[in-house]
Amino acid sequence: MITGKNYIGEKLTATGTKTYKTFNPKENKETEWTFHEATADEIDTAVSLASEAFQEYKNFSGAKKASFLNAIADEIEALGDELIHAYMAESGLPEGRARGERGRTMGQLRAFATLLEEGSWVEATIDTAQPDREPLPKPDIRKMLFPIGPVVVFGASNFPLAFSTAGGDTASALAAGCPVIVKSHPMHAATGELVASAIIKAAQKTNMPNGVFSNVNSSGIEVGQQLVKHPKVKAVGFTGSIKGGTALYKLANERTEPIPVYAEMGSINPVVILPSALEEKGSFWAKQYAGSITVGAGQFCTNPGLLLAVKSNALDSFIAELGNEIAQIEPTAMLHPNICKAYQNGIETAAAQSNTNVVASFDNEASPNFGKQKVLTVTGSEFLKNPVLHQEVFGPYSIVVQCENDSELQQILEALEGQLTGTVLGNSDELVSKSVIIEALKERVGRLILNSVPTGVEVCPSMHHGGPFPATTNGKYTSVGVSAITRWVRPVAYQNWPLELLPEALKNDNPLQIMRLVDSEYSKKSI
Amino acid sequence: MITGKNYIGEKLTATGTKTYKTFNPKENKETEWTFHEATADEIDTAVSLASEAFQEYKNFSGAKKASFLNAIADEIEALGDELIHAYMAESGLPEGRARGERGRTMGQLRAFATLLEEGSWVEATIDTAQPDREPLPKPDIRKMLFPIGPVVVFGASNFPLAFSTAGGDTASALAAGCPVIVKSHPMHAATGELVASAIIKAAQKTNMPNGVFSNVNSSGIEVGQQLVKHPKVKAVGFTGSIKGGTALYKLANERTEPIPVYAEMGSINPVVILPSALEEKGSFWAKQYAGSITVGAGQFCTNPGLLLAVKSNALDSFIAELGNEIAQIEPTAMLHPNICKAYQNGIETAAAQSNTNVVASFDNEASPNFGKQKVLTVTGSEFLKNPVLHQEVFGPYSIVVQCENDSELQQILEALEGQLTGTVLGNSDELVSKSVIIEALKERVGRLILNSVPTGVEVCPSMHHGGPFPATTNGKYTSVGVSAITRWVRPVAYQNWPLELLPEALKNDNPLQIMRLVDSEYSKKSI
Repeated sequence: MITGKNYIGEKLTATGTKTYKTFNPKENKETEWTFHEATADEIDTAVSLASEAFQEYKNFSGAKKASFLNAIADEIEALGDELIHAYMAESGLPEGRARGERGRTMGQLRAFATLLEEGSWVEATIDTAQPDREPLPKPDIRKMLFPIGPVVVFGASNFPLAFSTAGGDTASALAAGCPVIVKSHPMHAATGELVASAIIKAAQKTNMPNGVFSNVNSSGIEVGQQLVKHPKVKAVGFTGSIKGGTALYKLANERTEPIPVYAEMGSINPVVILPSALEEKGSFWAKQYAGSITVGAGQFCTNPGLLLAVKSNALDSFIAELGNEIAQIEPTAMLHPNICKAYQNGIETAAAQSNTNVVASFDNEASPNFGKQKVLTVTGSEFLKNPVLHQEVFGPYSIVVQCENDSELQQILEALEGQLTGTVLGNSDELVSKSVIIEALKERVGRLILNSVPTGVEVCPSMHHGGPFPATTNGKYTSVGVSAITRWVRPVAYQNWPLELLPEALKNDNPLQIMRLVDSEYSKKSI
Repeated sequence: MITGKNYIGEKLTATGTKTYKTFNPKENKETEWTFHEATADEIDTAVSLASEAFQEYKNFSGAKKASFLNAIADEIEALGDELIHAYMAESGLPEGRARGERGRTMGQLRAFATLLEEGSWVEATIDTAQPDREPLPKPDIRKMLFPIGPVVVFGASNFPLAFSTAGGDTASALAAGCPVIVKSHPMHAATGELVASAIIKAAQKTNMPNGVFSNVNSSGIEVGQQLVKHPKVKAVGFTGSIKGGTALYKLANERTEPIPVYAEMGSINPVVILPSALEEKGSFWAKQYAGSITVGAGQFCTNPGLLLAVKSNALDSFIAELGNEIAQIEPTAMLHPNICKAYQNGIETAAAQSNTNVVASFDNEASPNFGKQKVLTVTGSEFLKNPVLHQEVFGPYSIVVQCENDSELQQILEALEGQLTGTVLGNSDELVSKSVIIEALKERVGRLILNSVPTGVEVCPSMHHGGPFPATTNGKYTSVGVSAITRWVRPVAYQNWPLELLPEALKNDNPLQIMRLVDSEYSKKSI
């Protein structure tokens, strides 16, 4: 049941008077629920509980934390269709997507549980003593990763489950040993409360300390600001716009004790189409990209917003075919009227830039809040000199840049801001002959994709979902895949510590049977 | 030969008119050399050369970069006594220290060479394709760490060799594949130029691209500011004061593209003395700490500036013995008259705080620029309410805090800012019975030391020389030991890439024979 209240630890509270509602974009009307924004006191209580819970939670074994994460997945599944219906009502996204994203969310939680059960993620590094070393004896030193403390998570508008309440940021922080306070996304507060209830149930069933998780409602920016400024908060996870992410980043850096903000923000995900791809598979790629640009109303961080190629007849044909394919696609609902309005403003601004031409534009009537796709084209020189065209337009939009030659294409790549992904369409021979272009692309992105579309992000250890600024605030870290856990930890070294008092991961007999670096050798053996 | 010029790549230049000299603090007079501060043009050329060199250098094999690092060590050794004399003249430090620090510097360079030759540091992570997976095939994804681009290094005043021109920051950045521009420390510009000449020689002998290293002179803050703001600079390494480090951190965050500043700054390195240590080994520890507080005129980042214990007769005896020991030590020259002045101001400020008492104070005549040791004592409640006493006084100073009880001691630890190290003196039983205190200490530090002194930082994989802010700007990273290399890299994932075009570390047959995570299993095997 959706109450509209905040979870301050395991307690449902609504002491504030500021309320708000969520919106069904497909039906173009408010949902049935009313939410109470968290008060300053409620926020402070949530953080204090998290800080207290941390004292206990940080020392739990991997197995115990894994049981919590698996229980969360179970409880999310147990929410059944109530969750699916809330998700669909608050996002306008179809049922298949809702069920798929729920599966992915549960899969992520279980993947972190598996990581904890295996245990090697703590990067145990041991150098044994050399008491006879000259001129000075060498001490015994052993380090591993430890959780840093309470983490605040800002959920994403476009992934009400997989990047929100129990999404990758929350799962990775809980896995690391950090309590989490979620700032509920105002567009899907009901979905958020249901998932929060599942986390609280799981915490109770697996005997986690009260405060290990809280969920606070917010309609504006104040709740988030208070959380980021709170001295007991030690890190922030964020998925959203460049404007929102950089504002939090700035706020966090202005604190007496600055804290890291891991923000995944904007990306236009350049796609370089090499001649072979246009000549040999132009129609195929036109169809594939028409789909990739419009899937989910283009509301993906990996949406291909920029297609780059050198002028040719084959490129002309590709553009024509892409236009035909795009025009045939039926628009779908965007997440919220505000997102749809921002999208319409974005495409109008882009189309109003000088010397842009329309490749495809869906101009028929559509239901309110539906995102009508648009694709533009422009020359390389025009694109280079107009930074407005480099900006992300969140929605089913892309721009095809027709470059004069390889050198102009390379120049454009070097002028781009950091990106989550870069895609190349072409054959192996071209990857070699155009290696300078590939290298320029690699320097701007976190993931290089060959002969595919950038939409669809695999959850696995090798995934890197994080590119140079402003794709993220810190391109060294990923928000997808189990490596995301490293954002919430720091190393501590023990010197000369009694072996029996060391954490399990650092003990001589390696009771956890994890991979360690012992005297510069990788090994699972005991010492 | 010392020319006083800048190394802009391999070229010695001095186009600027601003000059300055270094100072011999022991002899209390200027040295013989005159240095030309780098001009804006010279700085820009150095960064542009670094950016060009990066295109080639980033793709060099581990073996090739290792040969460069080993050659640097050889060339530093080949500088012979000219380097030792310049070091002593510009630092006032004794010959044994000069030779020891030179050995450590060479050892660090060779340790990074060994790391590169082994090769597993790139964290190769591979998930092989599952073309038959339902509902969607799983692509092949492979990620590893890649260098980020030109790095600027600010050397430390207190380690003219090991934390300066060819110190840990430079060695780790070059090892990672990043060209380095060193902002020469104004207090030891001759030492810096000699080491720079060794790096340039090594680069030429091992066929490194011009621009892989530059050394620019500076007397004030402008050169450093221009470097940090330069768009082609991708990261900064710094060792020095909280004021200097946070100013650069702020500047770097204000850039259009923010870049990381890894600054190792202030630390007072709390030492918790438990009752057993006072009762059983009080005299021993008094002698040890008198040495640790005064060694190198107290000019170490791990100098024990804060001793904490609960009031007892044994503590009274310890304080008396510490005072006796400290009083007998002969002062030595500090690095520079300005450092000595700052130290004198620091101890005067500390001693002027209400309710502090002097434990030991060297008040006899001493040569100019010599640091006269001072130790104060204060009650726990006084220390808690006076943040001035929490500040680092760089030099042979410490304060003994006499706590009312364990709970006050714990409160003090929780009120401390982040620290590089925390030391505990006591026996194993006490570590168990006082676990709450140990845990509070662990949360504030990067390294926990038992029954030793914090001065002396081992260079090895398990070392963590990096604590929570303001000990460093990012407590996740170390500036000592081979893990320091991870500051200058970021992961890039390749999706669906042709196996033959992948970097060696990601190829199926594992030609580098490195440890990799393949389909979630650690292995050195080929796929």
